[in-house]
Amino acid sequence: MVKIIVDCFGGDHSPEANIEGALMALGNNGGLSLILTGDERIINEKLAGREYDRSRLQVVHAPQVIGCDEKPTDAVRMKRDSSMMKAMMMLRDDDDVAGMVSVGSTGALVTGALVRLGRLRGVIRPAFCPLLPTMDGGIVGICDSGANVNVDAAMLRQFAIMASLYVENVYSVEHPRTALLNVGKEEEKGDDIRREAYRLLSETEGLTFVGNMESRDLLSGSYDVVVCDGFSGNVLTKATEGTALELLKKLKKDINSRLLYKLGAALMLKMFKEEKEFMNYQNYGGSVLLGTSKVVVKGHGSSKAKAIEKCIEQAYRMEISGLGPKIEAQLGKYEHYEE
Amino acid sequence: MVKIIVDCFGGDHSPEANIEGALMALGNNGGLSLILTGDERIINEKLAGREYDRSRLQVVHAPQVIGCDEKPTDAVRMKRDSSMMKAMMMLRDDDDVAGMVSVGSTGALVTGALVRLGRLRGVIRPAFCPLLPTMDGGIVGICDSGANVNVDAAMLRQFAIMASLYVENVYSVEHPRTALLNVGKEEEKGDDIRREAYRLLSETEGLTFVGNMESRDLLSGSYDVVVCDGFSGNVLTKATEGTALELLKKLKKDINSRLLYKLGAALMLKMFKEEKEFMNYQNYGGSVLLGTSKVVVKGHGSSKAKAIEKCIEQAYRMEISGLGPKIEAQLGKYEHYEE
Repeated sequence: MVKIIVDCFGGDHSPEANIEGALMALGNNGGLSLILTGDERIINEKLAGREYDRSRLQVVHAPQVIGCDEKPTDAVRMKRDSSMMKAMMMLRDDDDVAGMVSVGSTGALVTGALVRLGRLRGVIRPAFCPLLPTMDGGIVGICDSGANVNVDAAMLRQFAIMASLYVENVYSVEHPRTALLNVGKEEEKGDDIRREAYRLLSETEGLTFVGNMESRDLLSGSYDVVVCDGFSGNVLTKATEGTALELLKKLKKDINSRLLYKLGAALMLKMFKEEKEFMNYQNYGGSVLLGTSKVVVKGHGSSKAKAIEKCIEQAYRMEISGLGPKIEAQLGKYEHYEE
Repeated sequence: MVKIIVDCFGGDHSPEANIEGALMALGNNGGLSLILTGDERIINEKLAGREYDRSRLQVVHAPQVIGCDEKPTDAVRMKRDSSMMKAMMMLRDDDDVAGMVSVGSTGALVTGALVRLGRLRGVIRPAFCPLLPTMDGGIVGICDSGANVNVDAAMLRQFAIMASLYVENVYSVEHPRTALLNVGKEEEKGDDIRREAYRLLSETEGLTFVGNMESRDLLSGSYDVVVCDGFSGNVLTKATEGTALELLKKLKKDINSRLLYKLGAALMLKMFKEEKEFMNYQNYGGSVLLGTSKVVVKGHGSSKAKAIEKCIEQAYRMEISGLGPKIEAQLGKYEHYEE
């Protein structure tokens, strides 16, 4: 039985979506048991009358909620009775608990994980790794995507190793093609950190390093993992998602501008629905934090029930794949680069 | 009469597209005179039999071409007889020449401009500023988009001032809403450079600073200028362009997968053509280099004639708007920040 904690507050559709997602994940995965944190009275009210395996779901009272505009360090220190920090402390202290899922404040989650949870052996800094769909039906992981604004070459190499093991073990991508995000494809592009990282990545055993990648090729299907500092990774992820959403919105508006277009679109209804689903990040789970001592999955603040179910299943798969020990084993080979 | 040099080589469709674009610009702008650099024999061959005002077009022989894979510093030093470097030297030495347009190697162009051309008074470093179309029919400038991988807060403030004056004077955008690219909207987001830049931008007179912007909102129409380091600006620009192009490709493929969809799309042909034109960067001119002593416009390597015409007209408008002197006047107010 794999035990995962679901932080039930802090998202746009919390706690309803969180609770609904938890029940869906519970129903679909017999090997899963869940702990829900948050205001006990509210959660129990929502659970009342629902059908589910009570032996695999527990509610833990945590009346506070961390807002998105709260300073992360303050939230971590002061709000110990929040749904997120309560989850974090239980994750740290209870050997039976494998991971947690939250859609709350990203800053508080990262800070909490760093301060309270600690890192896997050998990890310099944990990093975020969201997934985006590629045009050939695959996925691409972007690591780091916001946890570390400043990085060095040794950290970038660790991000590559961790993200590569992640997509290989959790998404069955064999020999993940791993690239370094840069301003051009040529080896000498970018700053000193990028050039040093290029060299380190080239000589990392067990890694399928395919060179530099320009951001325009992210969705091409030629890459499984892209390695970057947290600032440009965040820019890359959000620009890609944002452009897709803005274009869909424009398409919809333009279609509605003329009857003829509406007629044409009516014939293509199924296709447009598929495009919309394809670009809906709710289908691709959350952004996992790689390198923490236990599994942490961060869902979008706007996650609905289905997205939260995906996040829970992601945490579940990360645990049963033995990703943590595999990361420690691989990083151990390069410990001399950590200083 | 405004005199602009067109580097006729170094692009995917050179020299045909460059020459054709030059003739189009010449025909449409009576106040423009052009100098074409490149292999004289080839250029004259292409010009033979064409109708144009010979008094406003001159060809200057420069037999060498700089390849995209050449090391910029080597190219600038060694290839003085290249179409690009010849143009650069004439631009520097001839007071009558106002600017140049090139679709060749970006690295060589930036290095050449820095080494040979020099900067406007008060400019720490010139920066690239491409334009992208926004969803409400406007444009947004991204500065810097690749000339400076490493920046400090004072440079970011200068990019803001230069880009803001650029869209105001060349594209008639009043009080351009200028934002700082960051990983979140809150003032304290990002690294020390971003926080310091936020403070500097907030207190810059004459600038309409609207705070931090997340990359997902680039095309929303809420911003006229986005300020960033050259690395993340490059990632932002290319990710946005790349996502739009990949999605259009996918849409086309999906439409062709079923007869019904093809039928529907046939009714929407005009709309799809408009979407394609909307996303075609060839319609939005080149990436201008702001802060050099004279006007430099860099077009996409894949530019066709129409795109090159746009670049020439951009250089022309930059000159007649008096952008250079305006930048010097505005930067002069903050010279104490340059140290």
